[in-house]
Amino acid sequence: MLSVGLLGAGRIGRVHAQAITAHPDSTLSAVSDAVADAASQLAGEYSAQVRSSHEIIADPAIDAVLIATPTDTHSDLIEAATQAGKAVLCEKPVDLDLQRAMACQANVADHQKPIMIGFNRRFDPNFSAMKAASDAGEIGKTELLSITSFDPAPPPVSYIKVSGGLFRDMMIHDFDMANYLMGGLPVAISAVGSAVVDPEIGQAGDVDTAVATLTYSDGRIAVIKNSRRAAYGYDQRVEMLGSEGLLQAQNVLENTVIKSTADGVVGAKPTYFFLERYMTAYKAEWAAFVDAITAGQAVPVTLEDGVAALAMAEAATQSAGSGRPVQLSDILKPVAK
Amino acid sequence: MLSVGLLGAGRIGRVHAQAITAHPDSTLSAVSDAVADAASQLAGEYSAQVRSSHEIIADPAIDAVLIATPTDTHSDLIEAATQAGKAVLCEKPVDLDLQRAMACQANVADHQKPIMIGFNRRFDPNFSAMKAASDAGEIGKTELLSITSFDPAPPPVSYIKVSGGLFRDMMIHDFDMANYLMGGLPVAISAVGSAVVDPEIGQAGDVDTAVATLTYSDGRIAVIKNSRRAAYGYDQRVEMLGSEGLLQAQNVLENTVIKSTADGVVGAKPTYFFLERYMTAYKAEWAAFVDAITAGQAVPVTLEDGVAALAMAEAATQSAGSGRPVQLSDILKPVAK
Amino acid sequence: MLSVGLLGAGRIGRVHAQAITAHPDSTLSAVSDAVADAASQLAGEYSAQVRSSHEIIADPAIDAVLIATPTDTHSDLIEAATQAGKAVLCEKPVDLDLQRAMACQANVADHQKPIMIGFNRRFDPNFSAMKAASDAGEIGKTELLSITSFDPAPPPVSYIKVSGGLFRDMMIHDFDMANYLMGGLPVAISAVGSAVVDPEIGQAGDVDTAVATLTYSDGRIAVIKNSRRAAYGYDQRVEMLGSEGLLQAQNVLENTVIKSTADGVVGAKPTYFFLERYMTAYKAEWAAFVDAITAGQAVPVTLEDGVAALAMAEAATQSAGSGRPVQLSDILKPVAK
Amino acid sequence: MLSVGLLGAGRIGRVHAQAITAHPDSTLSAVSDAVADAASQLAGEYSAQVRSSHEIIADPAIDAVLIATPTDTHSDLIEAATQAGKAVLCEKPVDLDLQRAMACQANVADHQKPIMIGFNRRFDPNFSAMKAASDAGEIGKTELLSITSFDPAPPPVSYIKVSGGLFRDMMIHDFDMANYLMGGLPVAISAVGSAVVDPEIGQAGDVDTAVATLTYSDGRIAVIKNSRRAAYGYDQRVEMLGSEGLLQAQNVLENTVIKSTADGVVGAKPTYFFLERYMTAYKAEWAAFVDAITAGQAVPVTLEDGVAALAMAEAATQSAGSGRPVQLSDILKPVAK
Repeated sequence: MLSVGLLGAGRIGRVHAQAITAHPDSTLSAVSDAVADAASQLAGEYSAQVRSSHEIIADPAIDAVLIATPTDTHSDLIEAATQAGKAVLCEKPVDLDLQRAMACQANVADHQKPIMIGFNRRFDPNFSAMKAASDAGEIGKTELLSITSFDPAPPPVSYIKVSGGLFRDMMIHDFDMANYLMGGLPVAISAVGSAVVDPEIGQAGDVDTAVATLTYSDGRIAVIKNSRRAAYGYDQRVEMLGSEGLLQAQNVLENTVIKSTADGVVGAKPTYFFLERYMTAYKAEWAAFVDAITAGQAVPVTLEDGVAALAMAEAATQSAGSGRPVQLSDILKPVAK
Repeated sequence: MLSVGLLGAGRIGRVHAQAITAHPDSTLSAVSDAVADAASQLAGEYSAQVRSSHEIIADPAIDAVLIATPTDTHSDLIEAATQAGKAVLCEKPVDLDLQRAMACQANVADHQKPIMIGFNRRFDPNFSAMKAASDAGEIGKTELLSITSFDPAPPPVSYIKVSGGLFRDMMIHDFDMANYLMGGLPVAISAVGSAVVDPEIGQAGDVDTAVATLTYSDGRIAVIKNSRRAAYGYDQRVEMLGSEGLLQAQNVLENTVIKSTADGVVGAKPTYFFLERYMTAYKAEWAAFVDAITAGQAVPVTLEDGVAALAMAEAATQSAGSGRPVQLSDILKPVAK
Repeated sequence: MLSVGLLGAGRIGRVHAQAITAHPDSTLSAVSDAVADAASQLAGEYSAQVRSSHEIIADPAIDAVLIATPTDTHSDLIEAATQAGKAVLCEKPVDLDLQRAMACQANVADHQKPIMIGFNRRFDPNFSAMKAASDAGEIGKTELLSITSFDPAPPPVSYIKVSGGLFRDMMIHDFDMANYLMGGLPVAISAVGSAVVDPEIGQAGDVDTAVATLTYSDGRIAVIKNSRRAAYGYDQRVEMLGSEGLLQAQNVLENTVIKSTADGVVGAKPTYFFLERYMTAYKAEWAAFVDAITAGQAVPVTLEDGVAALAMAEAATQSAGSGRPVQLSDILKPVAK
Repeated sequence: MLSVGLLGAGRIGRVHAQAITAHPDSTLSAVSDAVADAASQLAGEYSAQVRSSHEIIADPAIDAVLIATPTDTHSDLIEAATQAGKAVLCEKPVDLDLQRAMACQANVADHQKPIMIGFNRRFDPNFSAMKAASDAGEIGKTELLSITSFDPAPPPVSYIKVSGGLFRDMMIHDFDMANYLMGGLPVAISAVGSAVVDPEIGQAGDVDTAVATLTYSDGRIAVIKNSRRAAYGYDQRVEMLGSEGLLQAQNVLENTVIKSTADGVVGAKPTYFFLERYMTAYKAEWAAFVDAITAGQAVPVTLEDGVAALAMAEAATQSAGSGRPVQLSDILKPVAK
C-alpha cells in the first residue's frame, strides 16, 4: 500500500484525493495547503494528517507526493521531493517560466523514482481509444490533426492575469495532446489570438480565442482551436485525418436522451467542465502512476513531456505577438545543469 | 453509518457490495452465501464478517439487509428480515410464484421500515432524465411507449430452465420500466414469443424473442421487445411518443470515437452488458435506499411495484401460451393475509 | 417513348405527373379527373390532353395508365385498363373491400402486361439499402422486425370516415414493408388501437394510434407502430434484428445543421411529410415500372402484393375489434374467378 | 423563357445543362466546346444547337450565357458576353491571374445585366441554413469559424500542374464560404501546406494538405483545412462558434442506414464527391441567377466576390511560400481600368 502525501488541497487537489483513496494500492496519508482550513477539511474527509509540505517531503514513511500547489512552486517542490527520494506526480504546467522548468528537468535528471506530469487528457478513454486506433494503423499514415478545445466560460480576469496567458494555461493541454497523438514534436508553431469573448481579457494582455498551427518535419500539420467560452459546455474534440480515413473523438454528453418536437431534435449538452468530463481520466492517470511505482512500468507522461508542452506554449505566445512562426528548436535550447 | 448485511455473494451481490462500500453513510458489515468460498472471498475484500443469513438477520447491530440470494428464497428472507426490524432491499423478482409474492406483500404490510425492490433501471440517469422530461410535460400527453431490451447473448440453457421464463426473468425489468414511465398499470397484456435464437431454449419450454403489447384504461399503448441476443452488445432503448413530441433514450456507448474509412463510418458499440451499463444506476439505487432509511424519504420502488411487475410477467406468460390478451385484474386478485 | 395516361389529378396524381415527365423514356399524354379544373390545370402544366378515363383507356396510342383516382374506382379501372391492353400502375390500396380486390386479381390473372401497385416506400433508398444488406446476410438470419410509422398530423375527420380506417389507409404501407423486408407473409396478426390523438376519430369509429404484431411460421416476429400525429414531422423508421446484428433505417432530416447552445444540442427535424420524404422513391418507382414495360423486368410490387397487404389490414382491423389474433389464412381464402 | 447558351460541355457544363433544363423559366438553346464531340453529344441530349462561343455570344436571341470553359478563357468571355449585353454566370475562379481578374472587373464595372460567379456551395441547403441561423443571431456574435473541406481523392498530377495550385483551385471555395458566412473579408491570411498525400504533387510545386488562418479586423478568426484525399468520401463541414453557441453543418450521407454488429456501429459514408453532394446547390444557384435576371433581384455572388476569393487564394499561396502572414490589402490593390 503506497502512502501518499498531497501538496495542495484546492479544487484539483480534491480530485486527486478522491482518486488516491479509490485506488486499492494507495492511501492518502497527509495533506498540506497554504490555507489551513482547506487542508484540514480535506484531511478530515479522508482521515489523513494535516502537515506542512516540508514535513510531508521529509517523512520517510511517505512513498509518493502529488503536487497540486500553485504553479510557481512546482519546480521547487519537484526538486525537493526528488531529493527526498519520493515518487512525484506534479500537476501541469511544470512552471510558467520555461528556463526554470528546464533547469528543474536538468536538476532531477538522475532521479531514479518516477516523476510524472499530470496531463490528464491522455488518460481519457476516448482519446486513448483514438490513439490506439491510430497507432494500430486503422487510418493509415496520419496527415492532419485537429483539436477543438473550448472551456464553458472564462475564468475571472484576476486569474487570467497570473495564469501565464491562454497558451501556457489552457492550450498547453492541447500541445501535449498533439505530442501524444502525433508521437513527437513539431518543428514550428504559428499562432493567432484575440480577445473577442471579453475585452477585459484583452486589456489584461491576454487572448481568449486562439488558433495555433503546428508543422512537422515530415509534412504533417496540426491545428489547435481554443476559446475560453462555449455556451453549451466543455467542448473537447479531436480529429485525425490519415491516408485511409478519419478518426474523431466526440464530446461526452450528459445523457443519451433525445427530444423531438416541433422546435427540432434536441440532445443533451456535453458534460459541463473538466471535473465531469475527466474524472475517469484522473483515476486512470493515478493508476498509471501507481503502476509506474509498484510495477516499474514506464512513466506515461514524463517531465520532458511537461517541458516540451511548456516550450510549445512559449513558442505560440511569441508567435501570436510577433505574427511570425516560431521554430521550436529556438525555444528548446539546452540549459546547463 | 448504516451497518449492512449482504445476503448472497454472487455476481449481483458483488455489485451491491461495491455500492454499499462506496456510499459515505453505509458500511458492509457481514456477508452470507450458501457457497462458503464466495462469502469469504467477498467478505475478505471488504473487511466484512462471514455469517449465516440467519445470524445476520438476528443481529440487532445490523440496520439493513440486501437480499441477493436465489429467487426462491426472496419471500422468506424479506419476511424474516422484516420481522427482525431490518430495512430491506431485495433484488428482483420478488418471487417466481406470484401467489407467494402476494402473500409476502400481505405478510409485511404493516412493516414500518423501508422495503425496496431492486429495479435498478429506474436509477439509470438516461431513463430518469426521460421520466423527468415526460413528467414535466415536455412532450405533452403520453400516447405510445416503446421499450427495446436485448441482452448481448443468451444465458446457459440450464439457467433458462430455472429462470421462470423470459417474461419473469428478463421482461420483468421492462414491465417495471413501463410502470415507472407510464405512472400506472396497464389493463391488459398481449404477448407473443418464439425461440429463434436457440432451439434448445424452445425445447426447454421458453422463448428467446418476444413482444408484449400493453393497453391502458385511457387508451395509451406500450410495446416491449425482448431478445436474448444482440451481437453488438446490450441494447437498452426507450421511446415515448406524446402529443407534442418524442423522447428517446439511446444506448450508452463504449466511447465516442468515430472512424470513417472506405468501409463506412464506424462508431463504438453499446456497453457490453448490465454491469457496464448500469453501475451508475446501482449506486444511485443504493443511495435512494439509504435516503429512505436515514432521511425518511419515500421508497422509490416498493414491494407493491415488485408484485405488479411479477403479475405482468405472469399475464404475458399466459398470453404467449394462449394467444389471447390477459386482463391484469384477473391476475392481480387479492390474497388473504 | 412510352405514352402515359394519368387517371386522377389530385395531390398524388401531381407527384406522379412529375415523375412521368422527368423520366427520359416516358411522356405524359393525357390526364383525367372528375374535377375538370384539376385535370385541366395539371394537363396545362405538362402540355398534356384533358380526356375522360374512358377515352384514355380506349386510346390505343396510350401505352400505360397510372391510376391515382379515389380508391373505390381502383378495381374497376385496373380491370378496364387491363382489358384494353395497357400496362397499369395503380396507387395503393387496390380496394378497401378485400373481396373486390381478390376478384380483381382473379379477373386480370391472365393479363400479359405489367400490373404494379404503388407501394412507394419499397423504392426509398434507405429502405432498399436495408433490404439489400439484409438479403446479403449482413446481420445473419432475421429474427425481429420493428416498423415505426407516424404521420405528422391527422387528416380531417371527414377523410377518416371514408378512409377504411387506419389499418387499411395507413398501416397498409407498413404491412407491405414487412412483406418486402421479411420476404413473405405472416401467419397471424394481432392488433390494438385507440383514439388518443383525437377523440373525434374515435367517434368516427377509427383509431389514431395502433400497434400490430405479426408472427411468422418460422418464429420470426414483426411489430408495427402507427400514430396519426408526430409533432416533429414524418417519422419513418425501420429496425431489423438478426442473429449477427441490427439494421436501422433512420429518418431523413431537413438539413444537417446542429446548433449547440445553453439549451441543448439541436438538430433538424425529419422532413415534414411523404412528398418531402419520398419524392426520390416515387421517381424510382416509376423507373421500375418503365423497366418492367420496356425491358421486360419483373414487376417489383405485384397485384398479389397489393391484395396481401389489404388482407393484412383486414386481419388487423378484425383483431383490433375482437381482441384476438387473426390467422391470415382465414382472411386470404381463395375467390372464385 | 430565358434562352441560354452554354460555353463548355465538360463535366461541370453537363451539371449546368441539367439545371438550366430543369428550371421552368429557362431553356438550353446552344452549346459550344473546343472538343466538337463533347458539344454535339450534350447538345443532342437537350435538343440544343452546337455553335461556337463567338456565335452564341453574338446571337441577340440568347439572353444569358453560362461560362464553363477552361479558366484561362473566363475573363475574356465575361468581357465579350458583357459587351454583347448578356447576363453572365461564370464558373469559379474568375481567373488564375489576379491582375487579369481585377482588370476584368474594372472593364465590366458599368455592365447593367447580372454577372454572377459560380460559388455553388453558398446554395447548399445546409450551409444556407447555417448562414440564416447565424444572421438571425441564434449563436450570438460570431467569434471563430472553422471549415473542413477534403476531396475524396487527388486529381491527376497533370491537372495539378495547370490548376494554379491548391489555394486557387480548391481552397478558393472555402475562402468564398468564409466571406459568405463572416459577411466580409479578413485583413490577413497565414497558410501552411505540404505534400503528404502524394510526393508527386510536391514535385509539381503544389501542396495537397493545407491549413489557412484568417484574421479579421474585429478579432474574429477563421481556420480552413484542406486535403486532397479523404478515403471515406467528400468531407464538407463547417462550424461557427459564437457568444451563445455553436453551429455545425455536417456531411450529407449516402443513406440513413446504420448497422450494428460485433464489429461496431456502422453508418453510411458521406456522398462521394461534389456532383452527389451539390446537385441541389447547382439547381438553387441557377434559380438565383434566373431570379436576378427576371425579377431584378440582387446577384448573390458578384464578380467582386469572385475577385476577393481569388485575392485570398493569392495571399495564401504567398504565405505558404514565405512562412509569413500576408495582408489582404497588399494583394487587393486597385487596378487602373
